[in-house]
Amino acid sequence: MSILPDSVQNLIDEFSKLPGIGPKTAGRLTFYLLSKGGQDVESFSQAVKNLRKNLVVCEKCFNISEISPCDICSDPKRDISKVMAVEEPLDVIALEKTGYNGLYHVLGGVISPIDGIGPENLRIRELLAKLKKGNVSEVILATDPSLEGEATAMYISKQIQKENLPVKVTRIARGLPVGGDLEYADEITLTRALEGRKEY
Amino acid sequence: MSILPDSVQNLIDEFSKLPGIGPKTAGRLTFYLLSKGGQDVESFSQAVKNLRKNLVVCEKCFNISEISPCDICSDPKRDISKVMAVEEPLDVIALEKTGYNGLYHVLGGVISPIDGIGPENLRIRELLAKLKKGNVSEVILATDPSLEGEATAMYISKQIQKENLPVKVTRIARGLPVGGDLEYADEITLTRALEGRKEY
Repeated sequence: MSILPDSVQNLIDEFSKLPGIGPKTAGRLTFYLLSKGGQDVESFSQAVKNLRKNLVVCEKCFNISEISPCDICSDPKRDISKVMAVEEPLDVIALEKTGYNGLYHVLGGVISPIDGIGPENLRIRELLAKLKKGNVSEVILATDPSLEGEATAMYISKQIQKENLPVKVTRIARGLPVGGDLEYADEITLTRALEGRKEY
Repeated sequence: MSILPDSVQNLIDEFSKLPGIGPKTAGRLTFYLLSKGGQDVESFSQAVKNLRKNLVVCEKCFNISEISPCDICSDPKRDISKVMAVEEPLDVIALEKTGYNGLYHVLGGVISPIDGIGPENLRIRELLAKLKKGNVSEVILATDPSLEGEATAMYISKQIQKENLPVKVTRIARGLPVGGDLEYADEITLTRALEGRKEY
């Protein structure tokens, strides 16, 4: 005999599928929605239902958008000589807050043999094709400073070298995060911070 | 110019309304759903939509259920002489795992003047009416061991005394949690653990 009504157990199961949400949190979220009026539940359900509605992948930068090319790619004020290669759409949102004014190229992930993702599964070919057109003077590799992110950045930079493209390839700096504490930094971060030191 | 498509921002906003989910987590959950197939998004949306479908509040114990009286209240094997008063339906799920065989009474919250919740907003009147029928020999007060939970338990026990009902009123034990560490326990918990000591 199940204690919970099917519809409740069903939503708990669906919440549990999301990353970082275990069965306890899923239960709490479900009962929170239950305690809310039917209007809130309906608007949440609609928001999920409409998520993919009108959504396209930008033909130029492969970011998600409502139109293609997206607002960033079709903005005449952006500096088209700079392209920043990032892993996912969420990275674009974070980077837009820095005031960066160039274009983006969403790779769609990182090279990760353990998950069966090779270079051919990412949009690296498309990036190289973009660079070959000759309008880009700098490509900024802004993949995560993780093992996979570093490997992907290195792979892309080697491919660009191999093709002998006249493009400056840069990698975002790795070092101590602002507000961080030197004493607690790991040795790899410290090594990178030293390597990347600048004249004052 | 918003960077995110409306439908994406909309779901991020909806996720952010849930307790314990900030805008960053909401973004992560939304992009996780985006990376999944349309089928997964659809089944999640359906689960939310159907949450309140066929759901009723049990007329006896006020737990949520698909039928009224609920499976627990209508189970002839349960001991109807015991009633456990709990705050919410989630508490019933936790207590069912202990093998408790009596009935429940879901209060629907705790007395919390700061949130404008008085005794009249809880199902205390209904509990007293149930006890007056004379079938119950013990009422177990299983509200949380928080300030509000203790106050609610004390209020209920006083009401029962006032009505002069021939019912044994018990409160779940407060003490050290199993697997806990005495050295790290706070002084109130330790005081309660000492007060509740038993002969070995």
